[in-house]
Amino acid sequence: MDRRKFNSTLALGASGITLASNVPMACAMGTNQDKKKLGIALVGLGGYSTYQLAPALQDTEHCYLAGVVTGTPEKEKIWVNKYNIPKENIYNYDNFDSIKDNKAIDIVYVVLPNSMHADFSIRAARAGKHVICEKPMAMNVEECDAIIDACKKAGVKLGMGYRLHSEPYTQEVKRFVREKTFGNIRYISADAGYYSGSSPGQWRLNRKLSGGGALVNMGVYAIQSLIYGTGENPISVSAQEFSTRPAYFKETDETITAQFQFDSGAFGTIMTSHNVNANRLHAKCERGWFELDPASTYIPLAGRTSNGGLNFKQESQQKLQMDDFAMHILFDAPNLAPGEMGKRDMMIVEAIYKSISEDGKKQALNFEPAYGFSDG
Amino acid sequence: MDRRKFNSTLALGASGITLASNVPMACAMGTNQDKKKLGIALVGLGGYSTYQLAPALQDTEHCYLAGVVTGTPEKEKIWVNKYNIPKENIYNYDNFDSIKDNKAIDIVYVVLPNSMHADFSIRAARAGKHVICEKPMAMNVEECDAIIDACKKAGVKLGMGYRLHSEPYTQEVKRFVREKTFGNIRYISADAGYYSGSSPGQWRLNRKLSGGGALVNMGVYAIQSLIYGTGENPISVSAQEFSTRPAYFKETDETITAQFQFDSGAFGTIMTSHNVNANRLHAKCERGWFELDPASTYIPLAGRTSNGGLNFKQESQQKLQMDDFAMHILFDAPNLAPGEMGKRDMMIVEAIYKSISEDGKKQALNFEPAYGFSDG
Repeated sequence: MDRRKFNSTLALGASGITLASNVPMACAMGTNQDKKKLGIALVGLGGYSTYQLAPALQDTEHCYLAGVVTGTPEKEKIWVNKYNIPKENIYNYDNFDSIKDNKAIDIVYVVLPNSMHADFSIRAARAGKHVICEKPMAMNVEECDAIIDACKKAGVKLGMGYRLHSEPYTQEVKRFVREKTFGNIRYISADAGYYSGSSPGQWRLNRKLSGGGALVNMGVYAIQSLIYGTGENPISVSAQEFSTRPAYFKETDETITAQFQFDSGAFGTIMTSHNVNANRLHAKCERGWFELDPASTYIPLAGRTSNGGLNFKQESQQKLQMDDFAMHILFDAPNLAPGEMGKRDMMIVEAIYKSISEDGKKQALNFEPAYGFSDG
Repeated sequence: MDRRKFNSTLALGASGITLASNVPMACAMGTNQDKKKLGIALVGLGGYSTYQLAPALQDTEHCYLAGVVTGTPEKEKIWVNKYNIPKENIYNYDNFDSIKDNKAIDIVYVVLPNSMHADFSIRAARAGKHVICEKPMAMNVEECDAIIDACKKAGVKLGMGYRLHSEPYTQEVKRFVREKTFGNIRYISADAGYYSGSSPGQWRLNRKLSGGGALVNMGVYAIQSLIYGTGENPISVSAQEFSTRPAYFKETDETITAQFQFDSGAFGTIMTSHNVNANRLHAKCERGWFELDPASTYIPLAGRTSNGGLNFKQESQQKLQMDDFAMHILFDAPNLAPGEMGKRDMMIVEAIYKSISEDGKKQALNFEPAYGFSDG
């Protein structure tokens, strides 16, 4: 199957019409339509930029690795040499704001520790650059609002680094939900976790940098799974925390379970952990079931349903994601992971922490039905 | 593989030694050692007796279908004809106590609605008969105590109808736990449920007869899965209830989720429902995982692990269970599901309902480490 290509063609086709009638943003940005590929600057050159995003940007069709922003001077030369990046497209955290004068950079992708997401996303927007912000969106809902506002004010596009919305197994799950392939969803569960034991000094375990533990790192995937796996925003959540290695997890949550209600009557559970290897989405429906396992890893996903196995072409998820965002800018294709999606998930994260602080008490959630869903 | 046969031989072999030194109960019962097969009387001739237990008793090696007890006179002739049961071994609920004079009946198997478990188990014990009690053991912990006391006073054996302890996939899970095949258990989850929609008049939906809904019916399997899947009694539990069809589930719980802590640091979750088809046990361990799916159905179980698939000989679970209990009586083989196991599970059921009534508040559980475990 190659639905991907079909979708891509469709989006490009539709853009012909759209461009003629309704693309104030693209026009406002000036040069986008003249270019074949948008230039992306990666901010933060940790493992994710190094091993996932930069390699993916060698294969993207609508964007490319144009620049980097790093706080570590020694990394500059390595990246310049490896990816042939012009010297003038290398920034550090201090001179970052001058990126506004660099026409080669269209998109700033914020891949920093969580505590720096809001600052750099807002500065990128003020520099007139489109923004991709890694998950979790920020340290709290207030910061999410600030990012969204800054992008609106600057007239730039904002997307979350939720790569799975561009991934074919996940898109198939969304199709099952949309077309009710297995009828209504009754019960959905998602696990997202890995065992962390050898890196006590990592920023993810430092609350000032991370804002939280397993929940804000892996739990966001599980929350996402429940929402695209039901097609609904939850109406309530309750949650519990489990701890077995407090000496390692000094400041951040090790394991959290949570239970969700949806307006349709569906309910869901998640387990997220920095102590357990688990990665799964499973939905029980009126007429069968569907499952992804793994459901959110970088390695190829896999899936099966009560009707049989799933088998989609495997491509870099990050390549697909960044191309989708570039197409959103260039051709007004849907924004598959808008900023409101990141904010909604942070609202759920905050409700989960509140439930835990109230010994598992159920917290009401009051989203508009489609709040935070993809534009498309 | 045929571990079963091996175990059975082992138990019989061991009994030679045991019988010579330590079998006061078997001696007290008088005739057991002279007989090849113990006579079982089924009390309550609903679907489980009709389609599972009676057929299984045609294949058992150490017991046989000797009598029935029914409240429905029309059923008597059918069972007499079908299974060639002597007229004098047929009882009704009124003359049931006279079963004490019937030497053909060694074991009374209580397969009645939950509200009648305690009454008939206690009367069976007072009649000097060994007792198998279906799950859930009774309506509450107080009744469980009364059953256990009555059996102790009467000097008869008491076993729960927990067939899975005699089932090879479940025994393999217990071996994984005992031998730490995959290291320590970190996270275990179990789902046990089915969709009920067409029988609003069934006794399971009548609280006076059932004592509860999904939790006391299917939830007990999930609780069992967590305990034999970790080898530990839980130290706390929290729980939530979900309802979507209150018109159908007027008096009993439709769906319940619960979260458990164990002293080792393992944690677990269950989902049980009369609204969702689901049947699974899955454990994440230090070095891999194991899974049964289905984990508690009558149809053959299936399992797989991070080391590969499991493949055991399929036999009637009820045949294995009743033979194991007969061997417990005849040869002092372990009681795989003693009354205390049923009581422990009822204590957990009560803690779950209490947590729900307190909006998900965690309830402490204080079991002795091996309380309610198999004797063996």
